[in-house]
Amino acid sequence: MGWSLLPREEKFFTLFERMAAKVVEAARQFRDLVENFTDVAEKSKRIKEVEHEADVIAHEVMDKLNKSFITPLEREDIRALTAYLDDVIDDIEATSSKLALYGVGKPTREVGELARIICKAADEIEKAVKHLQRPQDLTIFLIEINRLENMADQICREQVAKLFNEVSDVRELIKWKEIYEQLETCADRCEDVADVIEDIVVKNA
Amino acid sequence: MGWSLLPREEKFFTLFERMAAKVVEAARQFRDLVENFTDVAEKSKRIKEVEHEADVIAHEVMDKLNKSFITPLEREDIRALTAYLDDVIDDIEATSSKLALYGVGKPTREVGELARIICKAADEIEKAVKHLQRPQDLTIFLIEINRLENMADQICREQVAKLFNEVSDVRELIKWKEIYEQLETCADRCEDVADVIEDIVVKNA
Amino acid sequence: MGWSLLPREEKFFTLFERMAAKVVEAARQFRDLVENFTDVAEKSKRIKEVEHEADVIAHEVMDKLNKSFITPLEREDIRALTAYLDDVIDDIEATSSKLALYGVGKPTREVGELARIICKAADEIEKAVKHLQRPQDLTIFLIEINRLENMADQICREQVAKLFNEVSDVRELIKWKEIYEQLETCADRCEDVADVIEDIVVKNA
Repeated sequence: MGWSLLPREEKFFTLFERMAAKVVEAARQFRDLVENFTDVAEKSKRIKEVEHEADVIAHEVMDKLNKSFITPLEREDIRALTAYLDDVIDDIEATSSKLALYGVGKPTREVGELARIICKAADEIEKAVKHLQRPQDLTIFLIEINRLENMADQICREQVAKLFNEVSDVRELIKWKEIYEQLETCADRCEDVADVIEDIVVKNA
Repeated sequence: MGWSLLPREEKFFTLFERMAAKVVEAARQFRDLVENFTDVAEKSKRIKEVEHEADVIAHEVMDKLNKSFITPLEREDIRALTAYLDDVIDDIEATSSKLALYGVGKPTREVGELARIICKAADEIEKAVKHLQRPQDLTIFLIEINRLENMADQICREQVAKLFNEVSDVRELIKWKEIYEQLETCADRCEDVADVIEDIVVKNA
Repeated sequence: MGWSLLPREEKFFTLFERMAAKVVEAARQFRDLVENFTDVAEKSKRIKEVEHEADVIAHEVMDKLNKSFITPLEREDIRALTAYLDDVIDDIEATSSKLALYGVGKPTREVGELARIICKAADEIEKAVKHLQRPQDLTIFLIEINRLENMADQICREQVAKLFNEVSDVRELIKWKEIYEQLETCADRCEDVADVIEDIVVKNA
């Protein structure tokens, strides 16, 4: 991909890497929140701050995009990658906010597993974004994100079915069902990120 | 923006203004429905009619877009602006339909507050759309839409958490939770409108 | 539409027809699952396989798209048509999976009606896709898809309202509400397919 040599283009890739780092940061804080379920409101507030920082970077990308005549990637791909990275963080934040606001008890082992899956997917997203300019070794990260999404999907479906059978308090059932669904959406968004990166790689092969 | 001088382009902006007027009309009827909670089915039916009128305008835009070789804005922006304006009205209609069909009691003070927030956001959307061809004073409306969306988001999250604590009838909890979520989505769509307008403004600056 | 004469373009249309055939296959298996509510897990698993086969075709389209300099339709339309066809199948699969996992009893008459509506919409989608290269007689299929979507929407709204009044077990209410909502989304996606096909037809008229 010849465009990697041009100085003007570096900035976009630097911004993508900064956003990917925010995805990792939010995912790790979320995993910590789930694994050490104390000071939930405080930890959730810090994830909200990370979300805000990512918003600022996303705004910078869009600003730069709208002011650039020439872009290193197709405009729609820049837009899509930025929007999906932002969506992943939004879902993490929304889930942590619900854990705080709903006053739920200690998360189950499976919620912990999902938090770790999303954390791993975030790591793979960061690696893939860092390899955007030398994409020959990039596919392995995308395959792993897809595998993690499938795992998350499977766990969420099974856990929601289990909630119906095992949780006697319907309010708790509704709360946790929503939390599982938000985590499933979050994993879907990680796959959206992988899909748009795959598009970018194939187009520039 | 030089394109404001060309006669052929006026039509698109006129259509956008007519759609924005429908957003305002639907939002006001919805606020009235919530504030004066009588004849709910009848009022909801009238909002459905407004939705249908907006659909007709949206179809006109798409038709015109597909038949135009040259457009005053990027095609994807015309599509996105039309689709998001349509989405705002769809969400208002869906919420009013649920208020009618679910046989709920008088809405809470907070639902009234959300209806007023969406009404204000609709007014700001109309102002922004009317300023599309002289965008120097437009940013103020977009900032206000973002502020209103944040307010709506905050209220919805708190109210859903409150439902879990305070509503003893689980059916009522589920009904109102869905209504709050639909209103939150509606406010999100208003922000989507603001985002695409911001894109348009920056590109044509 | 002159592009129908060029051999290189046939491949895209063949792939669309193969995806549409998968939509029909999934819809019919789903209708059968609902009408003969036995071996639900086994039937749901087979729909999952159809979904996977459709994924493979969608991947082929994207791969071909990304490697083609010239395409018979606008790139964004090829992307959108593929994504929406995929979405229809995903929604069918998700609904059948929930019917299996939630351990629900025999579906109501209205769920059967919705399954038949989606089946009819799938047939119309297949016809429309087969007429993409001779679109003069195509509009009739799109109108029918829109009519079917309106019917599905109406039935789902009424049935969810009815669930609140008539289902005494709140868990069952929540399960069926989600199933109706997924079916409504599925019908919406069929309309998205119709909308993108309409776009394609108008542009190439």
